[in-house]
Amino acid sequence: MLHNPIIDAMLKRKSIRKYTDQKPSDETIATIVRAGMQAPFAAQLYSVLLSRDKENNTWHAPLEFVICVDVHKMETIMAKRHWRMASNDLMLLIFGIQDAILMAENLVMAAESLGLGSCFLGSAPTLANRIAEKFALPERVFPVVGLVMGYPAEDPPPRLRYPLDFVLFEDKYPELTDDLVEHAMKEMDEGYLAQNYYRNTNYRVELEDGKEDKHTFDDYSWTEHISRKWGQWYKSPQPILDQLAQRGFDLRFAGSKSPEE
Amino acid sequence: MLHNPIIDAMLKRKSIRKYTDQKPSDETIATIVRAGMQAPFAAQLYSVLLSRDKENNTWHAPLEFVICVDVHKMETIMAKRHWRMASNDLMLLIFGIQDAILMAENLVMAAESLGLGSCFLGSAPTLANRIAEKFALPERVFPVVGLVMGYPAEDPPPRLRYPLDFVLFEDKYPELTDDLVEHAMKEMDEGYLAQNYYRNTNYRVELEDGKEDKHTFDDYSWTEHISRKWGQWYKSPQPILDQLAQRGFDLRFAGSKSPEE
Repeated sequence: MLHNPIIDAMLKRKSIRKYTDQKPSDETIATIVRAGMQAPFAAQLYSVLLSRDKENNTWHAPLEFVICVDVHKMETIMAKRHWRMASNDLMLLIFGIQDAILMAENLVMAAESLGLGSCFLGSAPTLANRIAEKFALPERVFPVVGLVMGYPAEDPPPRLRYPLDFVLFEDKYPELTDDLVEHAMKEMDEGYLAQNYYRNTNYRVELEDGKEDKHTFDDYSWTEHISRKWGQWYKSPQPILDQLAQRGFDLRFAGSKSPEE
Repeated sequence: MLHNPIIDAMLKRKSIRKYTDQKPSDETIATIVRAGMQAPFAAQLYSVLLSRDKENNTWHAPLEFVICVDVHKMETIMAKRHWRMASNDLMLLIFGIQDAILMAENLVMAAESLGLGSCFLGSAPTLANRIAEKFALPERVFPVVGLVMGYPAEDPPPRLRYPLDFVLFEDKYPELTDDLVEHAMKEMDEGYLAQNYYRNTNYRVELEDGKEDKHTFDDYSWTEHISRKWGQWYKSPQPILDQLAQRGFDLRFAGSKSPEE
């Protein structure tokens, strides 16, 4: 493992959920967002919303950003050049989310370099209409992820990750043998338990349908947590399709061939 | 604008398409990917494929990565815990692409810090089945983006970006006045033309249907380029829906309510 200040900053980064009262300066905010924007892009298909309303921000963070896929700006530019959007909305979302998230990760690391901590909020897509109302979003702008930010008032250890051999595959995707999978699970679970991650954050996903929960914080680990999320949540695509539709994105292809191809 | 080594590294980053013959060491590769993996995640829903087959890699890059959304690993872990995936595929893709791209941007900046350049390849989703064949991907693994990497054999200037006031919106999304839009377009177009970006890369999007092209490299600018892409490409979602379906992701909701909600 090689080391330098950028690698080390990445390795020690962790989500921060408690912030001091110190307000980041206008120059700090502009620097973070400007550095974020220099991330690679397909088409700059994003906008960054900001609220400094600490009282009402998530966890009373001094800054709360919402990173949006923004097709409205692109269509406005295209109209000025006498073009009309021809792309289907699925491709716009695939490229738009990439543009937005490349930029968002630069925001995170730029903030770290200036002493600020941050935490992503994954609920933005399911709250899209509420966010749209708050920020008076036009159609064709879709909130992808929230990002709270401020000077840290806590210093938790970095969270664990899968072992490298469970992520990086050269030339061929491997057979997921019991050894490979169980080793990855063990690393994650023992690491989270050793850090008391869920006990300290007092967070667990409840079992649905009144099922008896035999896990305590002594054995409620990452693979249990993540299994409960994906095993119980987001069963229907309808809520997210509805949010998308109300923001002007249509993914209801109805399984038919497009007339154009 | 504040400055420090991380901010400055972000600001001077640009895509590299020409590489020296120098091979990045195993330790360099492991460091880049390990630092990438420390990016924030929702569920580590990704895998990183690597080819060092320089002869056959895009632009003969020493390294060619493909960043994939990987639901197969998650489902394998869940099965070991006696859970089954309940989530719809749209949410898995929304979260999976975010996980994959947060990591991918860390790969880019970690590589920069070690002297390597890189360039994203946006065609991966439309080539998903070809990539799947090459790397023997199981179902439920979907290529999101390619990333070539190596030591730079060129030193182009960083590409322009929108002005900050066209991206960062505090409290309220603004009306896109002619002034705001035209200023953003002017900054991009004059910047690209001053750099001779398209002339140097000898790249332009042709007009379809035999339309006469009145633009030369003297006035073929970013907003013209991007308008041609989005005004002509990806008209039907069917090709990408087909690639997704063959990789085991079903976004053909047929517009009906799910039986579960």
